[in-house]
Amino acid sequence: MKLTSVAHTGFTVSNLERSLAFYRDLLGMHLVHQQEIDAPYVGTITGFPGARLRIAHLKITPEDPHTLELLQYVSHPAEPTDRATNRPGNGHLAIRVDDLQAWYERLTAQGVEFRSEPTLVTTGMNVGARAVYMRDPDGFTIELIQPAASK
Amino acid sequence: MKLTSVAHTGFTVSNLERSLAFYRDLLGMHLVHQQEIDAPYVGTITGFPGARLRIAHLKITPEDPHTLELLQYVSHPAEPTDRATNRPGNGHLAIRVDDLQAWYERLTAQGVEFRSEPTLVTTGMNVGARAVYMRDPDGFTIELIQPAASK
Repeated sequence: MKLTSVAHTGFTVSNLERSLAFYRDLLGMHLVHQQEIDAPYVGTITGFPGARLRIAHLKITPEDPHTLELLQYVSHPAEPTDRATNRPGNGHLAIRVDDLQAWYERLTAQGVEFRSEPTLVTTGMNVGARAVYMRDPDGFTIELIQPAASK
Repeated sequence: MKLTSVAHTGFTVSNLERSLAFYRDLLGMHLVHQQEIDAPYVGTITGFPGARLRIAHLKITPEDPHTLELLQYVSHPAEPTDRATNRPGNGHLAIRVDDLQAWYERLTAQGVEFRSEPTLVTTGMNVGARAVYMRDPDGFTIELIQPAASK
């Protein structure tokens, strides 16, 4: 009786196409599966009877064991939550990149909102890395990290 | 210029010790790092000048490439967000388990709140799996999945 592995990180989004434009087209993630689903088990698991969801699964690389699951509740749309990172209940996803400064410049030019410029991590287990917080189209915080070892 | 890998999924929590009791002691995740940090870079990256955070990193297995990062804002506490899964901005984490029914019974006995009983996935890429939504101490949704191939 044990946990065996992480399956996915899920983000509820308000517009799946807009989110795909961000994660697939702008960040270059791989769309590995997409479906619209209203089978009864979906309503049971989510606790929203009759739920109809649009779901997309994306990976950093095709062989990545981790999946990002984007879910749009077609049947039960709701107001966005506040996404300030200091509020309990806030989630974020951290992704390693090869050249943080280049990503920062490209994404800034595309209108992506960053919390700061790329910033050196001076202590802790990631010392020497550079990191930055940015927001996806729904205001989710995505952290980009360039490890110390790489350029 | 590319994304290379997922580093971690982050959850902001209101009480790190309470969350460790859940993820480490009850679920059996491995605590691989813990620190309290107020170096200036933390305030820069988070956008909260002077931020002091308590951070814990946990893994499903010691060699798991994915990390769950729990963050408690000691310096900038805030009200919890609403954690209804249909609200854009909601995040969840899905974890595979070996015996979902046993986990369901053990965690229910410990007072963990589940959205339903373990439910068969009848369509889609996880057909034949069983899954369930539960809540962590801050109301985050954790999905437990038993893949179709295993018992």
